[in-house]
Amino acid sequence: MAVGYRELPPLAAVEGIQLGIASAGVKYPGRRDLVVIALAKGSTVAATFTRNALCAAPVTVAKRHLQTATPAYLVINTGNANAATGEEGVRRALACCQAVAEAAAVPTATVLPYSTGVIGEQLPAEKIIAAIPAAIADLNAAHWADAAAAIMTTDTIAKGESQQFILQGRSVTITGIVKGSGMIHPNMATMLAYIATDVALPAALLQQALTAVVAKTFNRVTVDGDTSTNDAVTLIATGCSKVALDSLESADGQAFVAALTAVALRLAQLVIRDGEGATKFIEIEVSGALSSDEAAVVGFTIAHSPLVKTALFASDPNLGRIVAAVGRAPIADLQIEKVNIALGSVAFVANGAVAAGYREADGAREMAKEEIKIIVQMGRGDASATVWTTDFSYEYVKINAEYRS
Amino acid sequence: MAVGYRELPPLAAVEGIQLGIASAGVKYPGRRDLVVIALAKGSTVAATFTRNALCAAPVTVAKRHLQTATPAYLVINTGNANAATGEEGVRRALACCQAVAEAAAVPTATVLPYSTGVIGEQLPAEKIIAAIPAAIADLNAAHWADAAAAIMTTDTIAKGESQQFILQGRSVTITGIVKGSGMIHPNMATMLAYIATDVALPAALLQQALTAVVAKTFNRVTVDGDTSTNDAVTLIATGCSKVALDSLESADGQAFVAALTAVALRLAQLVIRDGEGATKFIEIEVSGALSSDEAAVVGFTIAHSPLVKTALFASDPNLGRIVAAVGRAPIADLQIEKVNIALGSVAFVANGAVAAGYREADGAREMAKEEIKIIVQMGRGDASATVWTTDFSYEYVKINAEYRS
Repeated sequence: MAVGYRELPPLAAVEGIQLGIASAGVKYPGRRDLVVIALAKGSTVAATFTRNALCAAPVTVAKRHLQTATPAYLVINTGNANAATGEEGVRRALACCQAVAEAAAVPTATVLPYSTGVIGEQLPAEKIIAAIPAAIADLNAAHWADAAAAIMTTDTIAKGESQQFILQGRSVTITGIVKGSGMIHPNMATMLAYIATDVALPAALLQQALTAVVAKTFNRVTVDGDTSTNDAVTLIATGCSKVALDSLESADGQAFVAALTAVALRLAQLVIRDGEGATKFIEIEVSGALSSDEAAVVGFTIAHSPLVKTALFASDPNLGRIVAAVGRAPIADLQIEKVNIALGSVAFVANGAVAAGYREADGAREMAKEEIKIIVQMGRGDASATVWTTDFSYEYVKINAEYRS
Repeated sequence: MAVGYRELPPLAAVEGIQLGIASAGVKYPGRRDLVVIALAKGSTVAATFTRNALCAAPVTVAKRHLQTATPAYLVINTGNANAATGEEGVRRALACCQAVAEAAAVPTATVLPYSTGVIGEQLPAEKIIAAIPAAIADLNAAHWADAAAAIMTTDTIAKGESQQFILQGRSVTITGIVKGSGMIHPNMATMLAYIATDVALPAALLQQALTAVVAKTFNRVTVDGDTSTNDAVTLIATGCSKVALDSLESADGQAFVAALTAVALRLAQLVIRDGEGATKFIEIEVSGALSSDEAAVVGFTIAHSPLVKTALFASDPNLGRIVAAVGRAPIADLQIEKVNIALGSVAFVANGAVAAGYREADGAREMAKEEIKIIVQMGRGDASATVWTTDFSYEYVKINAEYRS
């Protein structure tokens, strides 16, 4: 059960986007595990992919296709990540693209493939190819929620978010879906996000917007500041609203980026809220750093600590573990005696030592909450960053020990 | 229960070392939680301490005392780490030293303090001070095993190792004890090790030997290549055997370093074998790297992965998780297509993809073992490193969630 997230909200259709779902039976017979997304002509596409040196075959193919053609279709399967599968994996990813291309009468390079699931097993491409006609027959602008459900793996709940707002006097839409339930990558091949808008942006500008937004959203919930083998965030601008942007610095451009950030942040946080075995949602705000990268490093050091995570799970105000995590952050010349730390509104570390007047009962009250905020002041500079994470429960071990069994 | 370690072996006395144990009741009434170690006159002492920016008060005091005097006594308490306790913590650590100094009629600066236990609570120094006379009255060369038991915190078994060997025609001894049960630091304030020999070495040479040995032993089991707030390894050379070394490069020097390495490696591995909730003992051997540091970074990236650890716990040959961990290691220009990985004698990744002929049954057989070896060949250079770790079990979460409750 996701922390503070009970059901998929209504997802607004995006003019120019159609989604079709089918059962390929990649891993489980009958499971709706295949999604095809059709993009209106004239759409532009931006994407960010995993930085893992082991990048999955579909990532290799998608990058190559993005360089040679404007995408017309996306094809997504769950159940198998097609990662660590070598040249044979690339051939199979291409075969899936080719099947979509043939069915839709478009060039193969206009199809982008995505896979998520177990790493190190060859993709049963023939099952996917056989189901592609059914997915294409199912294409419909209203199928966002079905697609959100179809791309789930260990996710406990479908995840998506819509924003509608006025731009240039017209109502425009940004809708996104995401899958990913591992608070810690590389969870199989974890996170896939698809966001679409009916605003028109040139491809380069769209990529610029996505890169900036991902840095503050999806890259702030990836536990090692790193990504798994298949992670991909894809942003599509169909332009069907007839609202066009040619700058991100204009008031309209800023409004668009703000709305995109809101959708992306919500999607990223939903992955954390549905983190494997998560019982808490943790926000870690680090300020007073020399750079936002440095602030993020400190935040991630806290967020990665299994001892902090287990204490959060237990609602145990074992605050020394947080201080110790700050102390071991890979930061040059950290002066712990300048560090202040608070749990919500409760200051518990002042100048590197337990704050005078700190009462454990106050810490315990904050720790008992389902949503917890850890605030760290480094006392070194003016930069800040916020990262989001979850706790570490029995259930996390259970999910990850029993996965595949 | 420690993996492959059933009981403390006989620990040989080291001439010139006496150990006394008492009950201070720091955390639990009646618990034997205080150890005093008395060093023969003329002993030399070397030490390595935590690199955590939050270093505990006793570490601060011990470093200062080591710079100003030759140690005559060590005083060690469990139950409270005296970390994140500010200036008051330093005062209390000093008060404990002073109590030993008064009881033994030596200068305060000749006493080194050590604490382990919960972080962020002030040390009940008065309890320790009250028990020091009893500890001193208990001093005895045969009390190594009692001391090994007294310094335990969440350890499930006392840990120690002795080696006796011939040097310059005489039998000499190296005996060590260690406490630490967290596979992941900073677990409270985790690891304390005390090693003594009756060989004579000048202090500078002793430090040189310890630094070199720690780099390949204790620093290869600390999961982040980092240390907790109180970690300390202390090496004492009493010289009482009348065997003296003036070089580590001589045949005798090399024999001494080899024996010291064997004792230190055993102690370091015992911490892993008794890792919190550990059910497996994992050796990760990385070769073909550009430097041993790089090899260690790859080893630690695998060793830290909760997904690898939970798969190891489940004996699940989910080998993709190991490949993905290698792929995300922070190494510049890693070419995954040159990487080979084996599980014991079973090759499962060749050139970055699942090896031809790999059968899951073979992987499963290796994963089912209590002691597992992961072998990574990077294909970049000639350097190598080995790190040791353990799996991640329900019990780990239980221990760390319920600690203090």
